[in-house]
Amino acid sequence: MSDFHVHDVRRPARLGMPEAVLCSPKTDAQLVGIVDDLVAFGAPALLTRLPSERLEHLPESTVNRLDHDAVSATATVNGTLPQRAGDVAVVAAGTSDQGVAAEAAATLSFSGITPRVIGDVGVAGIWRLQERLDEILDADVVIAVAGMDAALVSVLGGLVAAPVLGVPTSVVYGVAAGGTTALNSALASCAQGVTVVNIDNGFGAACAAVRMLRLLDERRP
Amino acid sequence: MSDFHVHDVRRPARLGMPEAVLCSPKTDAQLVGIVDDLVAFGAPALLTRLPSERLEHLPESTVNRLDHDAVSATATVNGTLPQRAGDVAVVAAGTSDQGVAAEAAATLSFSGITPRVIGDVGVAGIWRLQERLDEILDADVVIAVAGMDAALVSVLGGLVAAPVLGVPTSVVYGVAAGGTTALNSALASCAQGVTVVNIDNGFGAACAAVRMLRLLDERRP
Amino acid sequence: MSDFHVHDVRRPARLGMPEAVLCSPKTDAQLVGIVDDLVAFGAPALLTRLPSERLEHLPESTVNRLDHDAVSATATVNGTLPQRAGDVAVVAAGTSDQGVAAEAAATLSFSGITPRVIGDVGVAGIWRLQERLDEILDADVVIAVAGMDAALVSVLGGLVAAPVLGVPTSVVYGVAAGGTTALNSALASCAQGVTVVNIDNGFGAACAAVRMLRLLDERRP
Amino acid sequence: MSDFHVHDVRRPARLGMPEAVLCSPKTDAQLVGIVDDLVAFGAPALLTRLPSERLEHLPESTVNRLDHDAVSATATVNGTLPQRAGDVAVVAAGTSDQGVAAEAAATLSFSGITPRVIGDVGVAGIWRLQERLDEILDADVVIAVAGMDAALVSVLGGLVAAPVLGVPTSVVYGVAAGGTTALNSALASCAQGVTVVNIDNGFGAACAAVRMLRLLDERRP
Amino acid sequence: MSDFHVHDVRRPARLGMPEAVLCSPKTDAQLVGIVDDLVAFGAPALLTRLPSERLEHLPESTVNRLDHDAVSATATVNGTLPQRAGDVAVVAAGTSDQGVAAEAAATLSFSGITPRVIGDVGVAGIWRLQERLDEILDADVVIAVAGMDAALVSVLGGLVAAPVLGVPTSVVYGVAAGGTTALNSALASCAQGVTVVNIDNGFGAACAAVRMLRLLDERRP
Amino acid sequence: MSDFHVHDVRRPARLGMPEAVLCSPKTDAQLVGIVDDLVAFGAPALLTRLPSERLEHLPESTVNRLDHDAVSATATVNGTLPQRAGDVAVVAAGTSDQGVAAEAAATLSFSGITPRVIGDVGVAGIWRLQERLDEILDADVVIAVAGMDAALVSVLGGLVAAPVLGVPTSVVYGVAAGGTTALNSALASCAQGVTVVNIDNGFGAACAAVRMLRLLDERRP
Amino acid sequence: MSDFHVHDVRRPARLGMPEAVLCSPKTDAQLVGIVDDLVAFGAPALLTRLPSERLEHLPESTVNRLDHDAVSATATVNGTLPQRAGDVAVVAAGTSDQGVAAEAAATLSFSGITPRVIGDVGVAGIWRLQERLDEILDADVVIAVAGMDAALVSVLGGLVAAPVLGVPTSVVYGVAAGGTTALNSALASCAQGVTVVNIDNGFGAACAAVRMLRLLDERRP
Amino acid sequence: MSDFHVHDVRRPARLGMPEAVLCSPKTDAQLVGIVDDLVAFGAPALLTRLPSERLEHLPESTVNRLDHDAVSATATVNGTLPQRAGDVAVVAAGTSDQGVAAEAAATLSFSGITPRVIGDVGVAGIWRLQERLDEILDADVVIAVAGMDAALVSVLGGLVAAPVLGVPTSVVYGVAAGGTTALNSALASCAQGVTVVNIDNGFGAACAAVRMLRLLDERRP
Repeated sequence: MSDFHVHDVRRPARLGMPEAVLCSPKTDAQLVGIVDDLVAFGAPALLTRLPSERLEHLPESTVNRLDHDAVSATATVNGTLPQRAGDVAVVAAGTSDQGVAAEAAATLSFSGITPRVIGDVGVAGIWRLQERLDEILDADVVIAVAGMDAALVSVLGGLVAAPVLGVPTSVVYGVAAGGTTALNSALASCAQGVTVVNIDNGFGAACAAVRMLRLLDERRP
Repeated sequence: MSDFHVHDVRRPARLGMPEAVLCSPKTDAQLVGIVDDLVAFGAPALLTRLPSERLEHLPESTVNRLDHDAVSATATVNGTLPQRAGDVAVVAAGTSDQGVAAEAAATLSFSGITPRVIGDVGVAGIWRLQERLDEILDADVVIAVAGMDAALVSVLGGLVAAPVLGVPTSVVYGVAAGGTTALNSALASCAQGVTVVNIDNGFGAACAAVRMLRLLDERRP
Repeated sequence: MSDFHVHDVRRPARLGMPEAVLCSPKTDAQLVGIVDDLVAFGAPALLTRLPSERLEHLPESTVNRLDHDAVSATATVNGTLPQRAGDVAVVAAGTSDQGVAAEAAATLSFSGITPRVIGDVGVAGIWRLQERLDEILDADVVIAVAGMDAALVSVLGGLVAAPVLGVPTSVVYGVAAGGTTALNSALASCAQGVTVVNIDNGFGAACAAVRMLRLLDERRP
Repeated sequence: MSDFHVHDVRRPARLGMPEAVLCSPKTDAQLVGIVDDLVAFGAPALLTRLPSERLEHLPESTVNRLDHDAVSATATVNGTLPQRAGDVAVVAAGTSDQGVAAEAAATLSFSGITPRVIGDVGVAGIWRLQERLDEILDADVVIAVAGMDAALVSVLGGLVAAPVLGVPTSVVYGVAAGGTTALNSALASCAQGVTVVNIDNGFGAACAAVRMLRLLDERRP
Repeated sequence: MSDFHVHDVRRPARLGMPEAVLCSPKTDAQLVGIVDDLVAFGAPALLTRLPSERLEHLPESTVNRLDHDAVSATATVNGTLPQRAGDVAVVAAGTSDQGVAAEAAATLSFSGITPRVIGDVGVAGIWRLQERLDEILDADVVIAVAGMDAALVSVLGGLVAAPVLGVPTSVVYGVAAGGTTALNSALASCAQGVTVVNIDNGFGAACAAVRMLRLLDERRP
Repeated sequence: MSDFHVHDVRRPARLGMPEAVLCSPKTDAQLVGIVDDLVAFGAPALLTRLPSERLEHLPESTVNRLDHDAVSATATVNGTLPQRAGDVAVVAAGTSDQGVAAEAAATLSFSGITPRVIGDVGVAGIWRLQERLDEILDADVVIAVAGMDAALVSVLGGLVAAPVLGVPTSVVYGVAAGGTTALNSALASCAQGVTVVNIDNGFGAACAAVRMLRLLDERRP
Repeated sequence: MSDFHVHDVRRPARLGMPEAVLCSPKTDAQLVGIVDDLVAFGAPALLTRLPSERLEHLPESTVNRLDHDAVSATATVNGTLPQRAGDVAVVAAGTSDQGVAAEAAATLSFSGITPRVIGDVGVAGIWRLQERLDEILDADVVIAVAGMDAALVSVLGGLVAAPVLGVPTSVVYGVAAGGTTALNSALASCAQGVTVVNIDNGFGAACAAVRMLRLLDERRP
Repeated sequence: MSDFHVHDVRRPARLGMPEAVLCSPKTDAQLVGIVDDLVAFGAPALLTRLPSERLEHLPESTVNRLDHDAVSATATVNGTLPQRAGDVAVVAAGTSDQGVAAEAAATLSFSGITPRVIGDVGVAGIWRLQERLDEILDADVVIAVAGMDAALVSVLGGLVAAPVLGVPTSVVYGVAAGGTTALNSALASCAQGVTVVNIDNGFGAACAAVRMLRLLDERRP
């Protein structure tokens, strides 16, 4: 087992990135070992893709060490990182995007940044977006979470001057199944300078925001 | 040759659809024969996907029989169909969509309907769309021509109560190449009741509009 | 939660589209909250993709508020919309398309339109279609539901002058799995002016029909 | 060169299949060498995918040895195979399918079978097919050549008891580009017992017909 | 329900094809109704894709009417069709192809033809194929069932003069998952005149063989 | 024409994004008109995807108004934007990525930012990257341009704390053709917080960097 | 049954390859029969894709004959092959790759070669790889197991002169789902002379290593 | 320019791999500069994907420095690497595979290994392969070059104990276009331990063979 989870003690120091574990592809035995290692090491760590039902398959001794959140399917071990500056808006197109948006928000909270979450403002009813636009324009970084045609990403990219990070989400049927349509739509956005992360990767978008917020406090001379 | 182009004399009568010929997959010899047949038959007909350069490969006697339009790459033979009621807006997202929008407009003109063309109102600069919105809201049917992420289709679908026909266009690079991203995006639109035709199929969208406009003048008792 | 379902009070008024909720991608907790919101608001609403088995996971208080139909996997809250003019034929190719056809029919019924449902007339036995053709020719709008090769869409498009809306369905095996073959086949139909909605999207086809039927009673001056 | 074209002297004897050369992927130098070999060997051979323009790049001495047909883009060397029994209908959906249908017909002629070619009977105007149906019902084997949605394959499969061989064709735009839609549509046909060959493979369909016609004259005891 | 299963009484008479029902996409309620209809009509019928586990969800009264075979996941109602001439070899590449090969064999048996089944002769150990080659060369029609790279189809196509029908099978992992690799490989076979049916479609291959065997006994004058 | 290029006078002011024109999908007539409009308006503008060969098809009067750069295939009209703070490293994996890297660099230069270009440091010879690592670590933002397997994006993402923007490039053969492999590889990078733009979109990556550099000088209170 | 598993007694002798059975696509009944055959034959054999849960569905008499390993999901029957020379490093990028790496290692052990397993050295934290590089450089053959972007394959290919065999793994979400991204990335590696096996095919990579190690002891004169 | 071609002086020493340049994606200006650099450095180098027509676009001074071979589209600069031990068979399925096979052979020759080339032995006429089998069985490493269904790779993998390297080739039409079918077929081969390189990558297969042949002369103690 130890051969298969090398705790990367240098990454947080070098990159300022959270120590994080993607739980979905790991076996229960692997997860138990990893949590043991994380607790032993003592630094804050984030576990993602850990839905409530999964906890039932883990021993109580492991579950007790986790601070779990059901909506985002994340957990923390050893607390969170210190509070830091930066204002990130997590904007979601529909109810179905709540889980991915919550993963982004939980990752930001873990990283010391309090997110602003704005939900269900998809462009099929564009007045809902217009009512929340001022809040969004105030943010340093905007994370746009959208499935289906991901039109929200383009519309936001055309309205906002801050960095816009598109997070395509997978949805349940037809050409939208799996999220490839939303992904390609976000990549093909004619709004200039929009960037994209992998499908459903709320965690990755939050990490990208953390990288960007370094520009606020760590300027080069 | 006659075995391979059976002039469908009953289609216009039964369906009210224009007699039309898609020129791109046909050889020069086939085109010459088809134009001869159409002229002999005498009813108005529309040729599509016939760019100006193609005319140089056809004999002058054939070209002289055509009323050609360069922007839409269409031509008519034996004039057009009689004028009829109906108001169709052809709305295009960008400069690159002009050719496909012009094909839709030329097909409508041929079918006796004067189109209203509104160009370069893509959602990356959504104020351009808002300035033209009243014109669009007046139409009986809206044809939305868009490539890249085709976000215009969803935004129009959310603003307009009339039928919205999405025409995805093929564009030149990356994930948008070939138009599949625009197609899937339009199909996955969360705006309710938007319908879609094949990539670059301005002709088909205009035909669909013709089908719908029958509802204006041919009501069932 | 309230951040993630913004009840769109303006959509029915502006678009004449039904207030509708796609249930499949939502969690049970989200569904309970949405039904509460809908009941509190009081206007008729439609829930789709809600199979009978799903009801077992919802609290009785929520289920009691629903008027559920098992075949179409839909439910209504607060009744339906007022009766209106228009004659829509929902034509399905095979037994396996019944669920999607029923979703289209249920959406039409909810919208105040009584659908005419004609099932199992796929073109592999084309005489079955011919026997029902007169009924289909009487309709203002034709919704054609078909999986596999979706040849029914082309054949109907060639026989009927009314708008033909193709609804590709997903089927179970081989190249037809997922419905992409039926979708592409419908998009590539050489019948002029056929339009298409997303795979299995009976709801969307019905909404498109509602948009078209406005042409019967809401003419522009 | 001789290392790269091993003349398969045993194939015609063992399989009854024509000796044939697919010209498109071969270099001019390879073609010259192959024709030399075929002439030296002396048995009838068929060259496919050899359009007229290609002949201009070959030396006159090579071209003189070919009996070339422009429509099918085929040529024969050393004559054709002896006449044999069997009645094959080659049915094509549209003008654009003429080249592929002609390749099938030329391969049959080379193999000693006189084909019956029936063109432009696509199902978008199904009355054209009905007028030719009796001729088709008389055939021992039916080859159905169709692009776009290939609906002709299914419709024929439902009307004819003989073997139906679908040949999908590649067409020029949108989801039909490359022929994959036609291919998948033919494979997904709900008409029972339809079989399919590769896109644009008129040659292959004719060879399959030749295999089947052996059943007419070479019965097992 | 009756709207959604129109018993096609003319198909067997016109096409000589078996009356057959694909069970997998149908609901339990639909299956019960269809079996009732078939029994009432009285002619032999075949049910496919009906695994043993599915029977547990059907009422005993329905199950009792079925003559079920577990390996092929098929059942018959009202017996089988009369015995007829013809010799069909069903050749399978590996153990995993047994189910699909059995479906082909069961369909042939239902149609009155006794199949010859030859299993586990994949080309990775080509001597296994060589040992059974004489049996295969004796057949009127050869059905080649193979997954993975489906190399068996090409090898047989090069060794056998009879019609060769490739049935690609879906297998469990990597690029072979779903059967598309086997399908494309069979379509791209350089063995001349091999034809192909949809993935896992043992039933369809058997129907195609039935069509071909008509050439043995129903010659045209 | 004026209908099809609406000069977006508000975008630069609202978004700080460059006024830019993608030339490849536009006709020559469209380009001439657009350049006229831009010159008349007077503000600096950038033209991309304008290779030297294209200039030969434009009238001299249009070409004379352009400040063209052959390597990046870009041109400016009316000069560039004012100089501003920020240090962006454009890192390219191979010689073949030079054009896309140059497009990113030219866009940055146009936007007032002097880029640092580091070429041919692909990970197949990782020592080349290590020699240039200090320069890269000094940058505020890193643009990583790579085709084939795009492994450079992941390696940089693991070494650098600044924002890393992956630009996948299209390359010439096999599974890498078109750039989808590089795109998916960059999206799937296990380096945390890497973001991605469309294939070959050097322009878009530079625009994203411009968005991020606003964080250096336009902090929210 | 015996028709569907022909024990290939000649393969081990001719190819030096292990007798092996891929269990996942086989039914329980097939597995029981195969194990019986293998035990009767008496030579060592390897079963792959046999997870612990599957054992619960097999009769105890079958399970008792297996020497099962849970991590690699493999089992042996009749012991293993004799020890032989050769040093193979199995290098895995992440915890999620452990199962596939273990399958490769188990296959090597069965074949008489003691593998060296080096886990969790993905390139997102490239210092972890550098610490283990000397061990890797000592190996005769390197098997690189990696999912997501599979960048490890390229980096190893650039650092190691020995044969590098890439094994892409399937992972759980987004563009990496199914392993196609990792596969294409490994195939597109610009490191010269890297070869690739099917997704998740640890067994195949080990067999390829066995083929290569023959060069150590079976030189041609 | 110098920024965009960093001559990798350490690679040959560390990896024993040839210094090589893939010419197709490079501009003429880049190629001229690279050849200058290579000549100045003085070590042997190989240029691939450099067809004869390309030479016409390069200055005579550059062309004069190249030792060019038309069939393989390769050239060498500064001679070749010293002769070394090892016997590699390059086996090609058809005439169309000659170019890719020649690229593999030229790369081997450049690397000091005399290849054995065996052409046109595709499995559709398996007796051609059988006649050359003894030569193939003598080789240390077998490179199998095949397009279409690539069945040759599996058949060789089942007959030969040496390492078998599959090189899929792109061919001209239908499902085989681009080479993906051949690639997937080779990856899915059920012959154990076959490995694969990118489509048309004869160079890469030869480099893999060079890696393997090190096992002959550089044994670990």
